[in-house]
Amino acid sequence: MLQQISKNKVFNGWHAQYSHESTSLACNMRFAIYLPPQAEHRPVPVLYWLSGLTCTDENFMQKAGAQRVAAELGIAIVAPDTSPRGEEVADDPDGNYDLGLGAGFYVNATEAPWAQHYQMYDYVSKELPHLIECQFNVSDVKSISGHSMGGHGALICALKNPMQYRSVSAFSPIVNPTNCPWGSKALTAYLGDNRAAWLVYDACELMHNVTTSVPMLVDQGQADNFLEEQLLTSNLLEVVEAKNYPAQIRMQAGYDHSYYFIATFIEEHLRFHAKYLRESASK
Amino acid sequence: MLQQISKNKVFNGWHAQYSHESTSLACNMRFAIYLPPQAEHRPVPVLYWLSGLTCTDENFMQKAGAQRVAAELGIAIVAPDTSPRGEEVADDPDGNYDLGLGAGFYVNATEAPWAQHYQMYDYVSKELPHLIECQFNVSDVKSISGHSMGGHGALICALKNPMQYRSVSAFSPIVNPTNCPWGSKALTAYLGDNRAAWLVYDACELMHNVTTSVPMLVDQGQADNFLEEQLLTSNLLEVVEAKNYPAQIRMQAGYDHSYYFIATFIEEHLRFHAKYLRESASK
Repeated sequence: MLQQISKNKVFNGWHAQYSHESTSLACNMRFAIYLPPQAEHRPVPVLYWLSGLTCTDENFMQKAGAQRVAAELGIAIVAPDTSPRGEEVADDPDGNYDLGLGAGFYVNATEAPWAQHYQMYDYVSKELPHLIECQFNVSDVKSISGHSMGGHGALICALKNPMQYRSVSAFSPIVNPTNCPWGSKALTAYLGDNRAAWLVYDACELMHNVTTSVPMLVDQGQADNFLEEQLLTSNLLEVVEAKNYPAQIRMQAGYDHSYYFIATFIEEHLRFHAKYLRESASK
Repeated sequence: MLQQISKNKVFNGWHAQYSHESTSLACNMRFAIYLPPQAEHRPVPVLYWLSGLTCTDENFMQKAGAQRVAAELGIAIVAPDTSPRGEEVADDPDGNYDLGLGAGFYVNATEAPWAQHYQMYDYVSKELPHLIECQFNVSDVKSISGHSMGGHGALICALKNPMQYRSVSAFSPIVNPTNCPWGSKALTAYLGDNRAAWLVYDACELMHNVTTSVPMLVDQGQADNFLEEQLLTSNLLEVVEAKNYPAQIRMQAGYDHSYYFIATFIEEHLRFHAKYLRESASK
């Protein structure tokens, strides 16, 4: 059952926050949905947005300015939280922002104490889409996008489920978590020391092995402080070129890791997704 | 001297936060500025944005989605804080959000303990524009806008200085503070019990007495919880009609008091201001 937390009219559609008992995460979760005005008359396709470290469902909805274009294009947007939540949910004992609450990394944890709740991969790629398609006037046609840790989440969801998502995009994604400090720390905690288990959540590794592709757009700011150490965009570029993968990877001069960067280019991402969401819908 | 706190590229222009020692407020203040790409080549006109209760310089810059249109139109935006700040600055002893820090109401306080720092009218209408015009590549052509308490601020600044502002707009403004609970509480604290002193900060009263008008646009959500008790839009409508004042006051069905409302209509406000900022610049 959904509990409505808030509802605001925006660009002639509706933004709303709901909470629900998640079975995959075994806790109460909040998400946000933007329903464009077209959803009053027909099922609309959905773009899932996965946020980055420390975020909730609110950051994207409040800061990206996406609703204007979503309302024009007739696309719903769903923004889940970035980890399981609640007092009973394990958190980083050192209180760091890059592990535990707000840092689920969109994987299914296998290690204690994380495995009980940290099943974010199942939540965002299975449970939440099923819930959304049952509860709202949306079709099963969907794409996925995200920022930073959420860009990583979007890429792995699409690469692992090429038939489920019509297109994928990312801002400043962590593309190779098995080789960066944020990723190594989180994957060690959630999946243990065996690096073989990490590879199924690494966009570069997954792309290296895929046979079915998903149209992909990535924007990366060249003034992003995390680019060289954490995001490793050049590693994805290498695989894209080696595989001739249908991805546009754009380096944007002067832009940093903030939501100001996302706000600047979100319109182009939405129009990119709309092209594939529309094509699919008319099949 | 300005101290830069942050700088982000957004829509090919620059958002930045600065702090400075304010002489009128006798404390250190932070403000934000968005400089559109045109400011690299020529002085651009400025829209001042005054925020509402509890806000800082950040709310509008992060949530309104104004930079896209400002970049297109070549308008700088300046967002000051909503009150003096600092440990030495008086605050509401009861800790309420509607008095003291974050609630300066854009007046010059005359009563203790407020008078020492709470001179927000002078700050936003005199000191800050002077500073901005000295420090950035902007012209002296300006307009003003704001939300809620900041809508009140924008209206009184324009009504009191019709030659200084080319146009004024407001979202969900407090239009008649001498007759609503928020206004009465703040004006009693800052200006004392003599209601005659309040009238020079009341948009309805000011409009009643002006002889020179400023083009005005007001948007008010009909689902705004504060409409009936605090905002009193109908009182402004009455004066507009009685005076035949050049104001558009639009009631927007379904919209509430949130930034989602502002985001929906900010483009129309910016295009409204651009018309007058451009005309003036070419005089």
